[in-house]
Amino acid sequence: MAVKNVMTEDYLRSSYGGESMAHMRYLTWADMADDEKVPNIGRLFRAIAYAELVHANNHFKVLEDKKNDYTVTAGAVFGRGTTVENLQGAINGELHEVEQMYPAYLQVAEFQDEKEAKRSFHFALEAEKIHAALFKDAQDAAKEGEDLKMDSVHVCPICGHTVLDEAPEKCPICGAKKEVYKSF
Amino acid sequence: MAVKNVMTEDYLRSSYGGESMAHMRYLTWADMADDEKVPNIGRLFRAIAYAELVHANNHFKVLEDKKNDYTVTAGAVFGRGTTVENLQGAINGELHEVEQMYPAYLQVAEFQDEKEAKRSFHFALEAEKIHAALFKDAQDAAKEGEDLKMDSVHVCPICGHTVLDEAPEKCPICGAKKEVYKSF
Ligand SMILES: [Fe+2]
Ligand SMILES: [Fe+2]
Ligand SMILES: [Fe+2]
Ligand SMILES: [Fe+2]
Ligand SMILES: [Fe+2]
Ligand SMILES: [Fe+2]
Repeated sequence: MAVKNVMTEDYLRSSYGGESMAHMRYLTWADMADDEKVPNIGRLFRAIAYAELVHANNHFKVLEDKKNDYTVTAGAVFGRGTTVENLQGAINGELHEVEQMYPAYLQVAEFQDEKEAKRSFHFALEAEKIHAALFKDAQDAAKEGEDLKMDSVHVCPICGHTVLDEAPEKCPICGAKKEVYKSF
Repeated sequence: MAVKNVMTEDYLRSSYGGESMAHMRYLTWADMADDEKVPNIGRLFRAIAYAELVHANNHFKVLEDKKNDYTVTAGAVFGRGTTVENLQGAINGELHEVEQMYPAYLQVAEFQDEKEAKRSFHFALEAEKIHAALFKDAQDAAKEGEDLKMDSVHVCPICGHTVLDEAPEKCPICGAKKEVYKSF
C-alpha cells in the first residue's frame, strides 16, 4: 500500500493517532462499565475498541513505507466518569469523526486520488456511524440504570463494521464473510 | 488523582498519545515477527505493548477529572519493515522517551510539584530504559537470523516494569509483588 501526497499522508497519521487513543479509552471505560455492573456495555466498549484497532491498523498499513519518526496531532476525549458520562465522551468522539473528520479527510483523499487512503477512511467513516448509534443506545439504557440488551457483539476485522447479536452473511461495508467476524 | 497546572496536564496528554500509538505499533510488529518465525520477539513486542497500555492508563487516570475533547500532539514511529527494521523503530521511540521526553516532562512536573504526574512519568521513564535494552537484545538476535533466547516475559501492571524469564519478588520500580505480574 502507499500514499503519494503529504496532505493525505498527514491525515492518515492523525487518524491513526485518534484511533489509537480511542482504542485505549474504550478499554478503560469497558473496565469501568464492568465495575458499574453493566457488563454488556463493557463488552460493547471492548468490541468497539477492537474496531478502532482495525481502523488504526488499516491507516498504518497505507503508511507502511513511511518509515520514520513523526509528530502526530490528533483529537481525543479524556475523563473517567460514570458510564453515562463515559458514553457521552464516546458519542462526542464518534460524532466528530462522522460529521467532521472523516468526511473532510475522505474529500481530500478523493481530490488527491489516493485510492488506499480513500478505502481506509471510508471503512472507518461507515463503522463510526454505527458506533455512534450503538453508544447512544447503551447510554439510553444506562440512564435508566439498566444494561444494554444484547446477546453478543460482532466486529468485522477488515473494516470494523460492528453489529449486535448476529453477524450478517456478508459485511455491508467491505463484503467480508460472516465467518471472519470477531465476537465479543 | 489530579493535576493542577496546564503545562503538566499537556505533557500527560501528549504522553498518553505517544503510549497509545506505541501500544498499537508494537501489536502490529508482534504479528510481523510471528510471520518472520521469531515468535519470542513477537511475545516481547506483545508484552511491551501491554506495558505501554499500563503507562497510557496511568497518565489517563491522573487526568481523570479533565472530561473534555482535546487536540493531542505526540511523537510516533511509523513503518512496516523487516523485524530488524521494526525493532530499530522501537529502539528509536524508546530512546527518545528515555533521553528526551520523559526526563523533560519529569523536570517540569517536579518544578510544578505535580505528585501524581511525577509518579506516572517516573514509572514510564524507568520501564522505557528496560524496553530499549530488551529491543536491542532482540535486534542483535534478529540480525543473526535468530529468535530472542527467553522462556517468558513478565510485566508489572502498576508501572510497566518488564523482565525476561522470571518476575522478581518485588518490582524494582514500584514495589508491586511478584504475583501481580502479567506473563507473556
Ligand atoms: Fe475508528
Ligand atoms: Fe468508532
Ligand atoms: Fe467489513
Ligand atoms: Fe511507555
Ligand atoms: Fe516502552
Ligand atoms: Fe512495578
